[in-house]
Amino acid sequence: MDYPHIARQTSRVLSSYLTYQAVRVVVAQLSQTDPPLAIWLNGFSVTGKIQDGERYLEELLRERQELALRVMTVREHLAENILDVLPEMVQAEIHQANTQQRKHHLERLTQVAPSELASWPELES
Amino acid sequence: MDYPHIARQTSRVLSSYLTYQAVRVVVAQLSQTDPPLAIWLNGFSVTGKIQDGERYLEELLRERQELALRVMTVREHLAENILDVLPEMVQAEIHQANTQQRKHHLERLTQVAPSELASWPELES
Repeated sequence: MDYPHIARQTSRVLSSYLTYQAVRVVVAQLSQTDPPLAIWLNGFSVTGKIQDGERYLEELLRERQELALRVMTVREHLAENILDVLPEMVQAEIHQANTQQRKHHLERLTQVAPSELASWPELES
Repeated sequence: MDYPHIARQTSRVLSSYLTYQAVRVVVAQLSQTDPPLAIWLNGFSVTGKIQDGERYLEELLRERQELALRVMTVREHLAENILDVLPEMVQAEIHQANTQQRKHHLERLTQVAPSELASWPELES
């Protein structure tokens, strides 16, 4: 498995996702202080272009630079404050999800055909 | 900012993304050892349902349990091997992207109207 390559791709996806979360934070803040601007930013952000965080910011910088700068500041804050807890959270989540999937699958199998279980040694571990 | 809530959402997105990457790893492995099965898994996985990793695995467990178990094992390996490097990578990536965005925006501004810069003190820092 090409771990470095997968890590780089995952890092890029995560950066874009934090940009999306930063936009949501800014929209929520604006809805308290400047509702029309919140509506504008929301409209600007729902067109699918936010999938590519950098391109989105580039366009936002052209349209409303103060909002783009604010989103950039917020995503940097988010990165500083939530990234450190993520490895443990995700590892626990995947471990728990795998256990649940195996358990539910075992339950479905035992409901349908108990004899099939004998051919599935992975479940015993 | 509700950091714990954003961290939980990000963790869920990351788990799903690692499931997607695990599927890609298994497809690549199968294309060497069992091409028809690789094609089957690819077809099963491109229909958009992989967006929700757990639901996808639930269906795959019903259709081809050995493949689902393999994807689950691979995503656990991925989590163990790439998550620890992610916080630093993503933080560096966002910091670098922010610097680039500010730089390019400054370049665009100076090309268009140098006088506008005076009203943008954020760029000086």
